[in-house]
Amino acid sequence: MLDVTGTYTDHYELAMGQAYFLAGRKDDTAVFDYFFRRNPFQGGYTVFAGLPDLLSALENFRFDGQDLDFLEAQSFHPDYIAYLKTFRFTGTVCSPPEGDLVFPTRPVLRIEGNLIETQLIETLLLNILNFQSLIATKASRMRLAAGDGALIDFGLRRAQGLGGYHASRAAIVGGVDATSNSRAARDFSLQPSGTMAHSYIQSHESEVEAFRSFAAARPDDCVFLVDTFSTLGSGIPNAIIVAMEMERNGHRLKGVRLDSGDLAYLAKKTRAMLDEAGLHYVKIAASNQLDEYVIRSLIAQGAPIDVFGVGTSLVTGQPDAALDGVYKLAEAGGRPVIKLSENVSKITLPGKKQVWRVLDERGAFYGADVVGLENETEIPVMHHPFIPHQSFPLEARKTEPLLRPMMSRGKTVYEPPPLSRTAGYCRERLDMLPPEYKRFDNPHIYKVGISGGLKSLRDGLIARHRK
Amino acid sequence: MLDVTGTYTDHYELAMGQAYFLAGRKDDTAVFDYFFRRNPFQGGYTVFAGLPDLLSALENFRFDGQDLDFLEAQSFHPDYIAYLKTFRFTGTVCSPPEGDLVFPTRPVLRIEGNLIETQLIETLLLNILNFQSLIATKASRMRLAAGDGALIDFGLRRAQGLGGYHASRAAIVGGVDATSNSRAARDFSLQPSGTMAHSYIQSHESEVEAFRSFAAARPDDCVFLVDTFSTLGSGIPNAIIVAMEMERNGHRLKGVRLDSGDLAYLAKKTRAMLDEAGLHYVKIAASNQLDEYVIRSLIAQGAPIDVFGVGTSLVTGQPDAALDGVYKLAEAGGRPVIKLSENVSKITLPGKKQVWRVLDERGAFYGADVVGLENETEIPVMHHPFIPHQSFPLEARKTEPLLRPMMSRGKTVYEPPPLSRTAGYCRERLDMLPPEYKRFDNPHIYKVGISGGLKSLRDGLIARHRK
Repeated sequence: MLDVTGTYTDHYELAMGQAYFLAGRKDDTAVFDYFFRRNPFQGGYTVFAGLPDLLSALENFRFDGQDLDFLEAQSFHPDYIAYLKTFRFTGTVCSPPEGDLVFPTRPVLRIEGNLIETQLIETLLLNILNFQSLIATKASRMRLAAGDGALIDFGLRRAQGLGGYHASRAAIVGGVDATSNSRAARDFSLQPSGTMAHSYIQSHESEVEAFRSFAAARPDDCVFLVDTFSTLGSGIPNAIIVAMEMERNGHRLKGVRLDSGDLAYLAKKTRAMLDEAGLHYVKIAASNQLDEYVIRSLIAQGAPIDVFGVGTSLVTGQPDAALDGVYKLAEAGGRPVIKLSENVSKITLPGKKQVWRVLDERGAFYGADVVGLENETEIPVMHHPFIPHQSFPLEARKTEPLLRPMMSRGKTVYEPPPLSRTAGYCRERLDMLPPEYKRFDNPHIYKVGISGGLKSLRDGLIARHRK
Repeated sequence: MLDVTGTYTDHYELAMGQAYFLAGRKDDTAVFDYFFRRNPFQGGYTVFAGLPDLLSALENFRFDGQDLDFLEAQSFHPDYIAYLKTFRFTGTVCSPPEGDLVFPTRPVLRIEGNLIETQLIETLLLNILNFQSLIATKASRMRLAAGDGALIDFGLRRAQGLGGYHASRAAIVGGVDATSNSRAARDFSLQPSGTMAHSYIQSHESEVEAFRSFAAARPDDCVFLVDTFSTLGSGIPNAIIVAMEMERNGHRLKGVRLDSGDLAYLAKKTRAMLDEAGLHYVKIAASNQLDEYVIRSLIAQGAPIDVFGVGTSLVTGQPDAALDGVYKLAEAGGRPVIKLSENVSKITLPGKKQVWRVLDERGAFYGADVVGLENETEIPVMHHPFIPHQSFPLEARKTEPLLRPMMSRGKTVYEPPPLSRTAGYCRERLDMLPPEYKRFDNPHIYKVGISGGLKSLRDGLIARHRK
């Protein structure tokens, strides 16, 4: 959809790439970690999303003619420009499959390659993964709130420009059922969905006529918007009139949509009016500034809403609007490296690492991930990353490694499943997470520990730099 | 950048288009208004942005082969699909130039055309204008806070996916000076800018070596990031060492960047250390979660920061993340139409309208826009839109019409100026707005009134529907 060329990056990546190139370090190796520091929405977990788009962007990463002309105009060195002309990404990417749950401060994804390629793609990687993970997480929260209710993404009109395209995709990963976004539906094989706008009603002589003409065009996929003049005073009575006419012609009105007013009150009144007319099968859809909290409240009030239309807060990830993911160097030229900080929690974890998820006796998530060095085969104890002498024995615990090869030397080695399977995987992983991590208010904090080997390496590097 | 084809819209637009088509109404006319109900960020104004992208999307709006196949698979009617195959947007668009200030509840942009075309492009229009106006507004607030300080957009990594592309563009409209986003710089002729990442420092044996090698590659465009180990303990001392070496080779270090810690404190200490070393010319850049409030606070504290690097909150428009713009039918088949609501402020303004800005005796903005019917030549009095008997005489006031033709029958009749000119226009209009509308806390409310003619038309339609 977007021609993500080589300039889809920050200027400084190109500048650093040039400095490496001119210093003769183009074949030096590097290992970078992608991770974030805080779950979005003050929640207890994050849904990892965007992996297939990242892999495809990496495979297709090229500097085109316009890019090269631009770099020349910016006075980049001719030898570096010549190098970029045939540049291809040849690195290796390890991560969990899309849809898995991930947690703050430990690597979500690891990239190895040469210094220049791993640096150049930093911005692209962050741009894709931060956003899709944010939206998938928001969607999964709405899914938790909505229970068995259908969730439909109506967000494109309020989405952040072209960002709406992948927002609709990520929403499906997190548990949304369908989308109003036709282009995303077309390209990602999603279920398109939608009702009608107020303008459609207004463009007819009367509301009842508008319903009739819409039913004539789409007799089997017809949802009437009922609040153009008065929901209970005209919208629902007119919808009932036309639904009965449709019945006589062998069709069934699919639903009505409430889009303003007190949705809990209106849904109950609407259900009663529809049922009284024998229209038990007509579903009630509701929209208007819904988020996970409003959905939870509507359900708690017993509002008989079958379909929740969610827009702005879903596709923009309100109120956070961004996941704070970062991309940090862990190894350069085979040498583990660290970034210090006055804030101890911002000190990075050096070296090429693996992450293991600790499982409980039933195979569900125990509530902890442990980060170790890639070559550590046994991790008997996990240590608190910052508090000394706080540790937890792991011997009797089953663990699973989370960073698995997704791209090897520039070639994708992971077959992205259909999006519905990814959504199913996300649901499965969410079911394995104990409920206290999933509640919205003050969720339990998922633990992230480090291995003895990693702790020694890190503490040694800190001591060396502090000297 | 994005092939915005016919399916870049909501499913329901396509469904309504089909219903109009099958009802034989494809040549019926319609007038739609784009407007919003609330300024973002609890501010006193909104910057109108995205117009050139909208006009170009409308001119190029086509259903391609994939779109048509998709619609066929969705069981749209073959005659309708045949119609869409040669569909072109042939409507007329009136609005202010990009960069003007606009206010809630009155039309920002008016579209006329046939029912189908004006309906189909609703989602596209909202998607473009809502987002770019949000970001341009955020940028203009940062510009107001930063005074003469330079503002650089560092946001692409946290932007909402592809939305980052137009975010960087809109930020320039609102007053940002340069961007880290190379692709946006390439396509919109913006000034690219950037420094270095922590990884660059980490990939060298020592910080001072990293600075030296970077200076070797970019001796005349060199900003050192100084917080990888300790800003005052190593970053600044090392930057001073290398800056002196650069001086001896005839080059000047451009700046240092502070990226963590207490920026006010560190900037003062840094300035003193640089000055003591005779490096008065080395500028101080600061970044790390800046928004207009932090910038204002830094300046109020006298922090000697020359360049503000702004990221997440700029390009995602935190905390709002969306402008609530809507697109409402005002006239269908030559007949003015209305949408009612239990909430009086959500009742729409019927008919084909013009908006006039009231000027004061010096030609600055008086603080009011008046909405009238397009054919009203004289508007002696403006009425409060909802409160009866509250009015304001306009006879002695100069006014300027705001909705001017930008596209006529599908052809753009507005030559988009270079973005720097648009930014200048925005600045000019902002200078014409009295300061009380520009303050961040409880800004003065800009008045929007309606003409006598519009009031009669609206009240008549309300009475007819309420009957």
